[in-house]
Amino acid sequence: MNKPTHISLAHGNGGRYMRELIDTLFAKHLANPDLNTENDSVILNLQQKNIAFTTDGFTVDPLEFPGGTIGSLAIHGTVNDLAVAGATPKYLSLNAFIEEGLSFEKLERIVIDMANAAKKAGVSIVTGDTKVVPKGEGAGVFFATTGIGYLHPGVNLGMSKIQVGDKILVSGTIGDHGTAVMLAREQFGLSGDLLSDSAAVFPLTQSILELEGLHFMRDATRGGLASVANEIARATKMEVYLNETEIPVNDQVQSLCEILGYDPYYLACEGRVVAVIRNDQADEVLKRWQAIENGENARIIGEIKQGSAAVILATELGGERYLEELEDDPLPRIC
Amino acid sequence: MNKPTHISLAHGNGGRYMRELIDTLFAKHLANPDLNTENDSVILNLQQKNIAFTTDGFTVDPLEFPGGTIGSLAIHGTVNDLAVAGATPKYLSLNAFIEEGLSFEKLERIVIDMANAAKKAGVSIVTGDTKVVPKGEGAGVFFATTGIGYLHPGVNLGMSKIQVGDKILVSGTIGDHGTAVMLAREQFGLSGDLLSDSAAVFPLTQSILELEGLHFMRDATRGGLASVANEIARATKMEVYLNETEIPVNDQVQSLCEILGYDPYYLACEGRVVAVIRNDQADEVLKRWQAIENGENARIIGEIKQGSAAVILATELGGERYLEELEDDPLPRIC
Repeated sequence: MNKPTHISLAHGNGGRYMRELIDTLFAKHLANPDLNTENDSVILNLQQKNIAFTTDGFTVDPLEFPGGTIGSLAIHGTVNDLAVAGATPKYLSLNAFIEEGLSFEKLERIVIDMANAAKKAGVSIVTGDTKVVPKGEGAGVFFATTGIGYLHPGVNLGMSKIQVGDKILVSGTIGDHGTAVMLAREQFGLSGDLLSDSAAVFPLTQSILELEGLHFMRDATRGGLASVANEIARATKMEVYLNETEIPVNDQVQSLCEILGYDPYYLACEGRVVAVIRNDQADEVLKRWQAIENGENARIIGEIKQGSAAVILATELGGERYLEELEDDPLPRIC
Repeated sequence: MNKPTHISLAHGNGGRYMRELIDTLFAKHLANPDLNTENDSVILNLQQKNIAFTTDGFTVDPLEFPGGTIGSLAIHGTVNDLAVAGATPKYLSLNAFIEEGLSFEKLERIVIDMANAAKKAGVSIVTGDTKVVPKGEGAGVFFATTGIGYLHPGVNLGMSKIQVGDKILVSGTIGDHGTAVMLAREQFGLSGDLLSDSAAVFPLTQSILELEGLHFMRDATRGGLASVANEIARATKMEVYLNETEIPVNDQVQSLCEILGYDPYYLACEGRVVAVIRNDQADEVLKRWQAIENGENARIIGEIKQGSAAVILATELGGERYLEELEDDPLPRIC
């Protein structure tokens, strides 16, 4: 019998086809000493009891885009949530909801991209589950990844630590992921050579963790920089004041936003850290970040001020405008 | 502005609607001291370093069925994987992939059912993520849950411990879940009062964990009892010998299988444990299980024999037949 070329419902039934799908595709590429495909649970002997735990779902359309696929995105999204909490990402679980009719070839490219991202991020996928949904009740594949990371000793980050006078930094250009995915959608009839910023941010977070003035970190994903800023303003009831001239935006992102009427501050990133740090240590963060990969374009972009719980953008033209909380979604299925 | 009655794409955008969906529905019903909806990661101070870790995805159709919903199923599926590994389920993460157009009312019923199941199972949902997919690219809602459980000290279970002469037990009637879901599908034009067996099995597994002759446990889910038996046969290269007359099957399940030509051994359960134990302790398991809820119909259903790696069923009529590994899926979207 020939090996099937496309996913069928039988690949989700708990029997032979499912076992073969797991063995010949997922386990083959994601192999590591802790991965256990024989039992439904894996036994882990953790090195410490203080952990960070997080989960993320991925529905990006298209599944492959310049700079990544839904496979690498599913690694980066979850390891980044651990990293900004001050943890070292260690173990991941993987759920795949695969649509009947997806080609094995495409699924394999995605799983290989996932395996490479996991390896580079230093995490192991140790347990997983696959479900197959009938054609028309999915969109190729959705992933969910859940991660365990070892919390850095002494780390104590949170919105409640943020103080008036703190500086706000971003580790690189914003909106690259949202724009790259948008360009990959044929509906826009546009093209470009912009790559998604999708990447693991652990080297960036690790480089500044021991600075005692570090108060808060967050990766800007869905809803972009503006959404992180609004979350800070809402939680702290302070003003988040951002300088447009300092916020790094790629020329292509800027141009595309002008053509389509989007605001780059709301576009998703998948490899950018926003950090809030005591005023006197902001330059040190900048120096450390600019010296490492994906931190070259880091900038101090604003500060925390006394005032109303709002996000104010000082514009290039010398005015000020509110960056409101996002309501309508300019770009669904971006991550 | 009126509260929306149905899910829209804006509920997945990272902005105000998503926050309201999480606050007024998920966090409201799933509230517990460890749940953290402000940060993307939750910090856990585990009581021990030896843990079981598992994940499961849920795509059941219909979302509500006699005896449960996809919400309670998403709790039971994952806590049961931890329980049969010899662990006490503690923490869960939750992913929801919600289809645009799902009614809030239905989603709320499902989340309340999930909250009740979590409470009864003694687990806390501590972190989560929601994504919204466009109408026609989902099926109401898919869930993925990932669990952490504390491994019982000294527990050492696995297929490699299974020996010739071991007895095989099942904790209750088989195929109830598969049949109840099937009856809930209008396409069959059938009805009945059968309930799914969906339940947390931890009380059953905990009751026998300290028996040193206990070699292996597994919850029979997708692919049913026959699939667990085939996994044992394949891994151990021994014969799994089952007695049809001892396997508990509800009358309604039996009748429906006869009408539709299904084999009950392949139908999904969601609250049944299969245990393999040293011959001399099988009666003790039976006694303990029959004394507790959901164990009343427990039976010793077979044994491990020297022989080929196959599953043999001794039939009621005195013959023998192979229970082959499942190939075609009789019932997709059952869990």
